[in-house]
Amino acid sequence: MKYRITVLPGDGIGPDVMAEGVKVLQAVGRKFGHSFKLEYELIGAVAIDKTESALPEETLAMCKRSDAVMLAAVGDPRYDDPKLPVHPEDGLLALRKGLGLFANLRPVRVFDELVNASTLKPEVLQGTDFVFVRELTGGVYFAKPKKEWVTSRGRKATDSMTYSEQEIERIIRVGFELARARKKRLVSVDKANVLKSSRLWRQVAVEVSRDYPDVALSHVLVDACAMQLIRTPAMFDVIVTENLFGDILSDEAAQLAGSMGMLPSASLSGIPVAGKRTFGLYEPIHGSAPTIAGKDIANPIATILSVAMMLRHSLALDSEAAAVEQAAESVLKHGYRTDDIMAPESTRVGTRQMGDLIAARI
Amino acid sequence: MKYRITVLPGDGIGPDVMAEGVKVLQAVGRKFGHSFKLEYELIGAVAIDKTESALPEETLAMCKRSDAVMLAAVGDPRYDDPKLPVHPEDGLLALRKGLGLFANLRPVRVFDELVNASTLKPEVLQGTDFVFVRELTGGVYFAKPKKEWVTSRGRKATDSMTYSEQEIERIIRVGFELARARKKRLVSVDKANVLKSSRLWRQVAVEVSRDYPDVALSHVLVDACAMQLIRTPAMFDVIVTENLFGDILSDEAAQLAGSMGMLPSASLSGIPVAGKRTFGLYEPIHGSAPTIAGKDIANPIATILSVAMMLRHSLALDSEAAAVEQAAESVLKHGYRTDDIMAPESTRVGTRQMGDLIAARI
Ligand SMILES: CC(C)[C@H](C(=O)O)[C@@H](O)C(=O)O
Ligand SMILES: CC(C)[C@H](C(=O)O)[C@@H](O)C(=O)O
Repeated sequence: MKYRITVLPGDGIGPDVMAEGVKVLQAVGRKFGHSFKLEYELIGAVAIDKTESALPEETLAMCKRSDAVMLAAVGDPRYDDPKLPVHPEDGLLALRKGLGLFANLRPVRVFDELVNASTLKPEVLQGTDFVFVRELTGGVYFAKPKKEWVTSRGRKATDSMTYSEQEIERIIRVGFELARARKKRLVSVDKANVLKSSRLWRQVAVEVSRDYPDVALSHVLVDACAMQLIRTPAMFDVIVTENLFGDILSDEAAQLAGSMGMLPSASLSGIPVAGKRTFGLYEPIHGSAPTIAGKDIANPIATILSVAMMLRHSLALDSEAAAVEQAAESVLKHGYRTDDIMAPESTRVGTRQMGDLIAARI
Repeated sequence: MKYRITVLPGDGIGPDVMAEGVKVLQAVGRKFGHSFKLEYELIGAVAIDKTESALPEETLAMCKRSDAVMLAAVGDPRYDDPKLPVHPEDGLLALRKGLGLFANLRPVRVFDELVNASTLKPEVLQGTDFVFVRELTGGVYFAKPKKEWVTSRGRKATDSMTYSEQEIERIIRVGFELARARKKRLVSVDKANVLKSSRLWRQVAVEVSRDYPDVALSHVLVDACAMQLIRTPAMFDVIVTENLFGDILSDEAAQLAGSMGMLPSASLSGIPVAGKRTFGLYEPIHGSAPTIAGKDIANPIATILSVAMMLRHSLALDSEAAAVEQAAESVLKHGYRTDDIMAPESTRVGTRQMGDLIAARI
């Protein structure tokens, strides 16, 4: 079978790690007899440089014609000044909205081999394996009004944390579907003691739970969750939450895995169901790390594990996905480490060699 | 000198820990020759039970006549159902707003004696000593519109993350004042790559910084901060942020100290200046922990350290404040521990004995 994939290397280390993701994808193609048609497009600072837009129309159009999208990273210090009219990150936000990618999945798994790489005690991390489900196209990121204005007593600015029941329902269903296929425990995170949008969130979660009697739903306040994530991380199975809470908590949780360089993500436009193909965008959760760009230092594993998520969720190629994950794990087991996860008695390798080692094990 | 203090024991373990805070305050009075007039009032579930309001008018009026307010905890599972018309937490929110307590200070200090009590590695915690400054009466907690309504396509709900430049300016000044008296490093946390309110926040922070050339200001995105707090906690000095971010991040940071039972807080209605008296409310950051209420188990240290903050900020009694802090530290050094911070070879004590031990050292 032939699959069309849009490839968006983006900025900084983006091209470095994307090359390794593509390398592993092609190894999968050879081994399992698939053909992947890769189409490279611009996003982020490189797109602004060439087109003055962080998300050129062509890029969005190409993504829409694809079976899935691979993205590496956006962001460039040259465009950091908030006063500039356009920022690389705007491209990412526009892409999420333009493709309707409402469901962001971030698995957090602490590999036994890396249990010492985190700032948390190994005994606390033992057995940590959960999935964050973050709502990605609603809430305070996108809702209107979102503006700054001047009053007689100075400037004011507002953002709106607004949710409709449809927006909440579909993301809660994603949480339940994933939990059903895992340990059947769903934690919904909100701030229902203060926010109206959280009260609606909680009500809808309870309503949807009637369709999933086999899954245990519980509610945790966002501040308590920030604490539990580092107190008892192994107790979580699936966590579902709104856009901003998900941004904060999933980055906190990333710290458990020792390095951002290890964690993949999927952003889907539908509810994932095992064996069915759902359109999505796949990216490592780390940023563009401009200071190490082009130096063969960056860890490509997050991008490679994102390829595995793409194979599973958008192409319904489960064995292929598992092959990629096993290859990455085996390379870690054999002691190979990039700079960010280096440990005594391990073998330090660069970006390209890490990609080669994993591709060779497919 | 005679001081008027309103005492709000509240719910759950509130009365247990408040009794010890009062015990230590009275020891300070005897030792240093001050007289404290304590007036007990209702708040939270106990107030709802007796008056149907979580913050009776009398309580608010009494607080306004005082030099400072001591609060222990609010919250009761009997009032957890979001559908109920009134909740204990509403009393706390109304009190913050009613007293204009816009500046919430939460010092996070990892006592050497408790460096093993946290889930983080001791070497990561070493030297951690920072203060969180959280905006407490604005943003998405209070701004209007805040509502739920029904459209032709179902329910919707909104909260408004709104800030005026005055609200931002005064809390940023609190951050700078504290940093000036400490290690002169202020981190302002926002989400300026997505939120208009954060862009205004960042602009105002930069403007105010011109008055504090001796303090180094830097900006960190809220998601990155959630990571850095557990990656490199010792790098922080003073952190200033808006209401919701502060709620989440300061609870995460509380985890560094090993137990919520150790952390005090102050909520001020003015900018604290060393040696000057600023009105404020003082409370431990932990909740009402109803399951251990009345059992002589709860850790009173957070309440006792809150008394120290009151002596310093609202009564300008700096030596008295230091005496309380040194007494608490000495008791820890001598190996006395409540349940939540118990360790091998330590001496387990109850709430009352912990209070006695600290009071005896004043
Ligand atoms: C770059 C930024 C807009 C983005 C977000 O806040 O969603 C990033 O932090 C993320 O989590 O993917
Ligand atoms: C009880 C609740 C309303 C409160 C808050 O969110 O401010 C609490 O979490 C706190 O941090 O003091």
